[in-house]
Amino acid sequence: MRTLRSVAEAQTACAHARAEGKRLGLVPTMGALHDGHLSLVRSARAQCDVVAVSIFVNPLQFGPNEDFTRYPRTFEQDCGRLEASGVGLVFAPSPEEMYGPPEQRATSTFVEVPGLSDKLEGRTRPGHFRGVTTVVSKLFHIIAPDFAFFGQKDAQQAVIIQRMVRDLNLPVRVVVCPIVREADGLAMSSRNVFLEPPQRRAAAVLHRALMRVQTLADTGERDAAKLAAAGRQVIAEEPLAHLDYLEVVDRETLDPVDTICRGALVVTAVYLGGTRLIDNVLLHGVGQSQGPRMSEG
Amino acid sequence: MRTLRSVAEAQTACAHARAEGKRLGLVPTMGALHDGHLSLVRSARAQCDVVAVSIFVNPLQFGPNEDFTRYPRTFEQDCGRLEASGVGLVFAPSPEEMYGPPEQRATSTFVEVPGLSDKLEGRTRPGHFRGVTTVVSKLFHIIAPDFAFFGQKDAQQAVIIQRMVRDLNLPVRVVVCPIVREADGLAMSSRNVFLEPPQRRAAAVLHRALMRVQTLADTGERDAAKLAAAGRQVIAEEPLAHLDYLEVVDRETLDPVDTICRGALVVTAVYLGGTRLIDNVLLHGVGQSQGPRMSEG
Repeated sequence: MRTLRSVAEAQTACAHARAEGKRLGLVPTMGALHDGHLSLVRSARAQCDVVAVSIFVNPLQFGPNEDFTRYPRTFEQDCGRLEASGVGLVFAPSPEEMYGPPEQRATSTFVEVPGLSDKLEGRTRPGHFRGVTTVVSKLFHIIAPDFAFFGQKDAQQAVIIQRMVRDLNLPVRVVVCPIVREADGLAMSSRNVFLEPPQRRAAAVLHRALMRVQTLADTGERDAAKLAAAGRQVIAEEPLAHLDYLEVVDRETLDPVDTICRGALVVTAVYLGGTRLIDNVLLHGVGQSQGPRMSEG
Repeated sequence: MRTLRSVAEAQTACAHARAEGKRLGLVPTMGALHDGHLSLVRSARAQCDVVAVSIFVNPLQFGPNEDFTRYPRTFEQDCGRLEASGVGLVFAPSPEEMYGPPEQRATSTFVEVPGLSDKLEGRTRPGHFRGVTTVVSKLFHIIAPDFAFFGQKDAQQAVIIQRMVRDLNLPVRVVVCPIVREADGLAMSSRNVFLEPPQRRAAAVLHRALMRVQTLADTGERDAAKLAAAGRQVIAEEPLAHLDYLEVVDRETLDPVDTICRGALVVTAVYLGGTRLIDNVLLHGVGQSQGPRMSEG
């Protein structure tokens, strides 16, 4: 496994792999890897000849009062797990390598999907998705992967990146992989390490709320407002949890829906103390497949 | 010469050329081709094995009160000139092919360089450069050229595209080619056909004003305010011309400069009736080369 720190090295190594006719997969991460990330790596290994993983805590996607500085960084341990998982390349640049000196960033280029980025997560985290789409488009240009792998846990991110790839004609296939959960249903997240033990136990409430919505939908409830209310009620019953939002939205536009007849995405964000967690579940419409999803740019 | 209307055809044709080891050059245009465009094609032919020219009047870079509908369209004549110039591929998509159905554009993706795009042309044409950078990044993804050729006539556009390429790590070399002028100095532009004969005669004032600035600079004047005032005075003496701006700015940041010791860009925009023309000249600093410019992403 090669660890590359510069854009030029990464471009050269990836161009070399492509020139040998190898199919290249990219798993973009911010490090602090957990089994969710490793499931992305396994998907990439199954579909590609060479897997590149980027590890970059992207300052552009953190707000001024967010947890950029204290975001967990476990680089040595991450590399060990990636090497054991058959990853060929790790791209781990510095912020300066990605964005140049701070004084030049005032005239920087941004990639934005305004209609999708200001909703849900974007309401609480203005500028977050602009940071995500900008860094992901840079990674796509540097690595030029055939396939790129993202987790369904960040559902809105997955929708926005698929939209960006389609709109900008990026020559990459986006693969969205299922959420990996702890035994009690908590979605794996690098931020789970911030939870104190009582908060950790309470955090299972996100999945419980979503399962309550899923069960109601499975038993015939189609009214989105009633489904959302039932989910919010579950969160409200957990004293350590503070709801940011729980909404039933369209899977592509992320707009609220009235009924779930054509399928829907149930998304939630909940605070446990100072830690903000997100989770989601897809409600499938009549006749819609539940298989893995792939979209092509 | 092949004329391709769909993104998929263009991607396939260009991928094929690259797979054969050919160096691919892209000349993005809005059609209504003149000798300025053909000089870009000649540069591309000199440096590349296959030259692709895009012809697309990009609705995204026109404001609601601008000349999108009456922008000159001379497609058959353009193709004749390109074929005679040795162009291999013409990519001429429809607005729907590039941007999808109009109702989907509310959630579209944009590429922006905010710090450079709101100045000069951007003050008079808000949103213009967002349209330019978005369409150029799409063309770069579709064609994936090794080199892309732009005219120095659109100086701010050239600066912004070079910045976008650098910031987003786009794997393309941008080549900026010199302005091609009519006998009286008027910079060639597709919009020159809009000029009535008296306006056409008066339009030489842009170049005259820039030459006045150049001459003063060559004879030792370093004060940017004095140079700009002298240029504006030349415009003011032409009754048919109405000045939008004439400024002396930094070649990279496009910020106003006080002195031209380190080189500068003199940019102007002038109305002749309803037609708005732009022109510019580079003032070189001590020891700066005047050769052709190329930058690498």
